[in-house]
Amino acid sequence: MATAKLAQWAVNLQFSQLPSSVTQAANRSFYNWAGCAIGGSTHPATLKASTALRPFFGQPTSSLLGRSASSQDGKADAQHAALINGIASHVHDYDDTHLETIIHPTGPVASALLAQAEALETPTSGKDFLLALVAGIEAECKLGLTVWPKHYDLGWHITSTVGSIGAAVAVGKLLKLDEEKMGHAISIAATQVTGLREQFGSDTKSFHIGRSAQNGLLAAALARNGYTGSLHALEAKRGWVNVVGAGSNRLEEMVGSLGTIWEVEKNSFKPFPCGIVVHPSIDGCIQLHDEMRERGLVANEDTIESVKARVHPLVLELTGKKTPIDGLQAKFSVYHGAAVGLVMGKAGPAQYEDPLVISQEIVGVRERFEATADGNLMADEADILLTMKDGTVLRKHVEHAIGSLEAPMTDEQLQTKFKDQSMPVLGRNGTAAASKAFRSMEGAESVAKIAPSI
Amino acid sequence: MATAKLAQWAVNLQFSQLPSSVTQAANRSFYNWAGCAIGGSTHPATLKASTALRPFFGQPTSSLLGRSASSQDGKADAQHAALINGIASHVHDYDDTHLETIIHPTGPVASALLAQAEALETPTSGKDFLLALVAGIEAECKLGLTVWPKHYDLGWHITSTVGSIGAAVAVGKLLKLDEEKMGHAISIAATQVTGLREQFGSDTKSFHIGRSAQNGLLAAALARNGYTGSLHALEAKRGWVNVVGAGSNRLEEMVGSLGTIWEVEKNSFKPFPCGIVVHPSIDGCIQLHDEMRERGLVANEDTIESVKARVHPLVLELTGKKTPIDGLQAKFSVYHGAAVGLVMGKAGPAQYEDPLVISQEIVGVRERFEATADGNLMADEADILLTMKDGTVLRKHVEHAIGSLEAPMTDEQLQTKFKDQSMPVLGRNGTAAASKAFRSMEGAESVAKIAPSI
Repeated sequence: MATAKLAQWAVNLQFSQLPSSVTQAANRSFYNWAGCAIGGSTHPATLKASTALRPFFGQPTSSLLGRSASSQDGKADAQHAALINGIASHVHDYDDTHLETIIHPTGPVASALLAQAEALETPTSGKDFLLALVAGIEAECKLGLTVWPKHYDLGWHITSTVGSIGAAVAVGKLLKLDEEKMGHAISIAATQVTGLREQFGSDTKSFHIGRSAQNGLLAAALARNGYTGSLHALEAKRGWVNVVGAGSNRLEEMVGSLGTIWEVEKNSFKPFPCGIVVHPSIDGCIQLHDEMRERGLVANEDTIESVKARVHPLVLELTGKKTPIDGLQAKFSVYHGAAVGLVMGKAGPAQYEDPLVISQEIVGVRERFEATADGNLMADEADILLTMKDGTVLRKHVEHAIGSLEAPMTDEQLQTKFKDQSMPVLGRNGTAAASKAFRSMEGAESVAKIAPSI
Repeated sequence: MATAKLAQWAVNLQFSQLPSSVTQAANRSFYNWAGCAIGGSTHPATLKASTALRPFFGQPTSSLLGRSASSQDGKADAQHAALINGIASHVHDYDDTHLETIIHPTGPVASALLAQAEALETPTSGKDFLLALVAGIEAECKLGLTVWPKHYDLGWHITSTVGSIGAAVAVGKLLKLDEEKMGHAISIAATQVTGLREQFGSDTKSFHIGRSAQNGLLAAALARNGYTGSLHALEAKRGWVNVVGAGSNRLEEMVGSLGTIWEVEKNSFKPFPCGIVVHPSIDGCIQLHDEMRERGLVANEDTIESVKARVHPLVLELTGKKTPIDGLQAKFSVYHGAAVGLVMGKAGPAQYEDPLVISQEIVGVRERFEATADGNLMADEADILLTMKDGTVLRKHVEHAIGSLEAPMTDEQLQTKFKDQSMPVLGRNGTAAASKAFRSMEGAESVAKIAPSI
């Protein structure tokens, strides 16, 4: 009866039942998502998708984030807005992570939810929006925990396979579906299993997030109008868990933990737009940059003698690229990440632009960096020893990298991340307005008014 | 390299390479599909879907078959037309069957293809249309043969899981994609795995066919505009065959047989809108009706003493419902099927309308019918012994039921089926025009002009 139980839980969830830590985590997740979607709006993959699909656009009810939303050209019908914002939010691999399942939970859910909220005639309050967002994120993460890790090992992109269902729950909550219709929405979403891991490395990886948002939105729209699916779609012999979940028997347990253990509280945010294993090294190098700065020192090929890092073995396995030639390759290079950290004290999107990657300023320092695998270190740990030509020796031990659950990004750091992504797209004023609106959703009277006002 | 080989084959396929038996089979398949989509256009599931999605409709380029296509209200953007025509074409379970895989091949492919052809600015000739249709049907059936039967046993609705890819190939062919873009289209379609068998019995079973048409159409539109997927999406370790095909190793073999063994030639058509296991009994009863008629006899409760049938054991297992109370239940009743065959000499959609199912005219004969399971009979075989009160004894042995590969429906029988479905929707003139246009596609100058002219 898991399908029915999930539907019942979602329909009956009240804002007053949400601990403030949950609403805060949900708003941080949404805010981080919005920054990623704005930042990703100018990526070629996002633009290819929107150009290809523009001939199919319906009534422009919903914003394409980052595209001068006050003009008609920056809007689409809700289904296409969900798809395109979903692509944009994931295309830089900079979105959030539910670390237990490596689901990026907010992409599918928020992409569908914002598009639907903007398409409604009645205003959606920020509280109702956050409530629906929490319902959707909890649903997808509980289903992810049910089938993790076999489902992912088999080859499914777990973010999108569970994302369709999370998006349906969130949109269904926003549309105030009753329990039976919510069950049908979950069912229609579950039957659309989108996302093969073979697509990693191609544009289609981001498509998965957009399409799962659209799958869920479509499922809720159909269910709202009486369209039916099996009300045992998750638990039945030939239902979702058995067909794609490799025989997991944890469904009842996970659905039973809804509202007791809140998954959104375990959501984490990437401080740097690159593979998470590089983050401890970057974190340490930024700390070294800051300490040098306090001492009046700068890092460049003339000042640095050597930088020796001990890192978790996965770092060299996954990100051992010594001579990246563009931004994409740089994401898989601990050498580049360390160098920009040391030289610039930052590793945001601007530090992964192609010209910088091959600039002598960075390459000169990159070549001074050596990394050694050390099986005694944790994945979020690094130890870095910097020796300068003037004899100065500095050392940083990063026990838990920034962005891990033990060292979450502060609100201020999230704002910096938002601005780094939004500035090149919306400029200073647009970014300030967007940042303010998206980070304080709880007080919003009408969510639909936010994006068009930016 | 199966993804690339499939793309290469589809891109290079020429109309002149198609044997006439293939083009004829393709046109018969399309004609049968069109009749089903027109007949299904007034079904509640189709109407619920179109009502729910109308707010999202874009430019009305493409016909919703059966809905007074000359008005704007009877059109939608190509994506929604593909979805809704796809639902309509399957909703009566009356569409075609590739018997080796029980795929219903034309639904996903034709629903996408017609919608796309109508949306193009340049006219699509009937020959180009049939060529694309063949490419799509061959692609999906070869993939179906690759993963059958484990894929279906696991719980996947094979028609829609392979249908997305077939639709992408067909639309990609129509759009004249090059080999690389065709590969991307196949890839983007493959990552959208739609259809759990748990949905059988709900509206969502038909949704699968519509959504797979839409998945393929979307994939081709994205690929056309440069959107990329993995070019090893079918064969890779974490690609389609391994993730959903339960480890089949037949992919290369099946792709290698493209253009040598034509799957569309093996497509079959249902003469009666009910479970295929009942067909031999209905066939025999219609033959008895015709013979009685020649002898000046009629079948009713006063004239018939008994009807004793020997049937394959599955008949009673799947369709043993003795006292159906409506049309849906009657589809699972060999008793009803036999009775309408004997009394009316037909078993079309009109014979499955609710009032007829509980009429004394039919119930009186139904009660005289006895069926006995006989393990020595084949699934498409039946033996029926009719004893009339006047002492007349008639017997029919059906070796291969009408609609099986050994006894395919004639063109004339397909026309009768088309008219039985279309008449209640389009009326006499519309039906005559539609039947003529859809059954002679090869000579059409512009496919886009057909539906709006009906």
